Amino acid sequence: MRIVQKFGGTSVGDPERIRATADIVQGELECGNEVAVVVSAMSGETNRLLLLAAEMSESPAVRELDAMLSTGEQVSAALLAIELQRRGIVASSYNGSQAGFQTEGHFARARIRHIKCKHLLQRMQKKEVPVVTGFQGVDEDGNITTLGRGGSDTSAVALAVAVEADVCDIYTDVDGIYTTDPRIVAQAQKMDRISYEEMLEFASLGAKVLQTRSVELAMRYDMPIHLRSSFDLVTGTMVSKEDKTMERAAISGVAYNRDEAKITIRGIPDDPGIAANVFGPVAEEGINVDVIVQNVSEQGFTDITFTVPRGDYSRTMVIMSGICEKMDARDVKGDDSVAKVSVIGVGMRSHAGVAKKMFDVLAAEGVNIQMITTSEIKITVVIEEKYIELSVRALHNAFGLDHTETVEY
Amino acid sequence: MRIVQKFGGTSVGDPERIRATADIVQGELECGNEVAVVVSAMSGETNRLLLLAAEMSESPAVRELDAMLSTGEQVSAALLAIELQRRGIVASSYNGSQAGFQTEGHFARARIRHIKCKHLLQRMQKKEVPVVTGFQGVDEDGNITTLGRGGSDTSAVALAVAVEADVCDIYTDVDGIYTTDPRIVAQAQKMDRISYEEMLEFASLGAKVLQTRSVELAMRYDMPIHLRSSFDLVTGTMVSKEDKTMERAAISGVAYNRDEAKITIRGIPDDPGIAANVFGPVAEEGINVDVIVQNVSEQGFTDITFTVPRGDYSRTMVIMSGICEKMDARDVKGDDSVAKVSVIGVGMRSHAGVAKKMFDVLAAEGVNIQMITTSEIKITVVIEEKYIELSVRALHNAFGLDHTETVEY
Repeated sequence: MRIVQKFGGTSVGDPERIRATADIVQGELECGNEVAVVVSAMSGETNRLLLLAAEMSESPAVRELDAMLSTGEQVSAALLAIELQRRGIVASSYNGSQAGFQTEGHFARARIRHIKCKHLLQRMQKKEVPVVTGFQGVDEDGNITTLGRGGSDTSAVALAVAVEADVCDIYTDVDGIYTTDPRIVAQAQKMDRISYEEMLEFASLGAKVLQTRSVELAMRYDMPIHLRSSFDLVTGTMVSKEDKTMERAAISGVAYNRDEAKITIRGIPDDPGIAANVFGPVAEEGINVDVIVQNVSEQGFTDITFTVPRGDYSRTMVIMSGICEKMDARDVKGDDSVAKVSVIGVGMRSHAGVAKKMFDVLAAEGVNIQMITTSEIKITVVIEEKYIELSVRALHNAFGLDHTETVEY
Repeated sequence: MRIVQKFGGTSVGDPERIRATADIVQGELECGNEVAVVVSAMSGETNRLLLLAAEMSESPAVRELDAMLSTGEQVSAALLAIELQRRGIVASSYNGSQAGFQTEGHFARARIRHIKCKHLLQRMQKKEVPVVTGFQGVDEDGNITTLGRGGSDTSAVALAVAVEADVCDIYTDVDGIYTTDPRIVAQAQKMDRISYEEMLEFASLGAKVLQTRSVELAMRYDMPIHLRSSFDLVTGTMVSKEDKTMERAAISGVAYNRDEAKITIRGIPDDPGIAANVFGPVAEEGINVDVIVQNVSEQGFTDITFTVPRGDYSRTMVIMSGICEKMDARDVKGDDSVAKVSVIGVGMRSHAGVAKKMFDVLAAEGVNIQMITTSEIKITVVIEEKYIELSVRALHNAFGLDHTETVEY
């Protein structure tokens, strides 16, 4: 097998952790596998560097920030290479430039354009271990660029694609993706497999285990990601293409997000372009509008309801009041104690009735659904926040996730 | 004027010092000069990184050490660039690879082969400020290499040569080279000018202000070095080609070194090759032999006396005892309380009698000269250590260095 392994900041946080990480690398080599490693900066290092820059300037030049931040990974990569060599393993560190990560776009959020990785591949084939800095590359002018927070996941998947690895192992401090939050539902189970699409839906709902971009990249090139714990070497969750075994269950998991606020603007004259007029000013402020519902027009007037992150609630209310006046709408109402609950599963494509079952379960629990939005593999409802635990537990049970067997419905 | 400025670790040691350094850079720009800057790592940073590596392994791979250590300068260069930009100056940091420093030879002590600096020069000509990492480059295989401790001086001089600068300003925590140690002679004066050759002699005698390699490089390409203080912007000492004004005085300064020990092997059968037999084993141990004196042979036997750094005294005595037995010599004697005093000056080439005057002065003070060695521009004597202050003061005065006027003799 050819494997690209990615280790985060805690896995290279101190000499002891680096040794434990080297154990994992050595283990794969001893199984006869070809291995390349991608590392993040030692935990705390990126913040230390940001603090230094902040002491210098309130708005430090972003090109220079990238040059500074990239050193964090260069140090951790060298330290891991030193440890591997101490064990007699041939290993060398490579920074973004040396590893051939060519990027484009803005500093601080560059995109990987191409990886010139022939030399790395040759080393892997000789059972040598390239230890590559995550999170960074160089643009066409030779400037050092970074990929944004969490970019090391994307680095690892991109390298795995480039060297045609069999799998990209992403080591983290959790041991996989669960059917729902185990803090709410004790019977939550770790999933053995999950499709890229489902992983994206989980990620967009705030499961901060994998950077969304890395999943999108893996999906585009069909690179399986094995999400696993560096503290506990049990099998984690394999993120891969949807396969037959996944079709057994309609629903893979139940996700939720408390960080929601709901705003309704009522009685807007229903002219063409009202959506643009409402959401343009919100977008300009950098506020992410999520669920949007527009009612059917009645006597030339309509209502629009949407959700925003709770932290943007007050700002959005101010903007909407201005818009209300300008557009001659009736009024604006808001509620910052709502939350989202979603059921997710590629299986719902082939099972009718998932939505109906979801609504029945919530009705039986007396939970009022305020908004509904659907995608091909997800149904999301907005409800009062206080019903979150109740709803998640009821849905997790009703869709058969409390047990290892699936339940017919 | 086109200037390359070099700032050491204390000059970029914290935000306050970086701001003071930026003041100096800005000052030169405002005078209409073209400026490039070379920086060391923030003081303490190199040691912090070495400690991290030492925690990992007793003998960390030298390639990885270079990769780690090079990050120190990358951070300080970025911080200075951030500060310059905050002031509205167009500035960018460049690491060794980006600045085009191509090296050859070993890790940890690479030599600069070539600097591809066309892009840096173009920026300087546009009054932009490249801030370049000292101490480092990349070899032909793209590996990061460092030039050895103090290598930033060499980086600065090499860059100055490459961009055809008028001068290389090296900022440090002293304000120049003195005629002798001001701690011994209160009347010691800062020299306005000193030749490359004299500077090399001072450096080899332990004046740790400039790395010897950087002076050799400056001499080869005739690049004037302005050695000056970053704490006090008075004029420092200009290290440059010997010129007419330097010929006024026979002697430029008096230097000394306490770190000496003397060893004599007596009654060696005077066969061809005895020097090789004596010094071969010492060199193999990495011990630097300095002054060597061999007496005229008497009845087929000779004596050899030499000095070594005091820290190597015991080791050398052990080696010499073995050699004594093997070569059937009479005995070995040692003395680890000797010291060297030198008078240095390009002027002595054209002034007869400098040596005689030196010996007269020491004799008048009752100082016994144990060994003598000379170069074209230096006379060194080995004496008992306790006479050091007395000798330095007497020579400094006798050669007219206590005054601004030179003294005829």
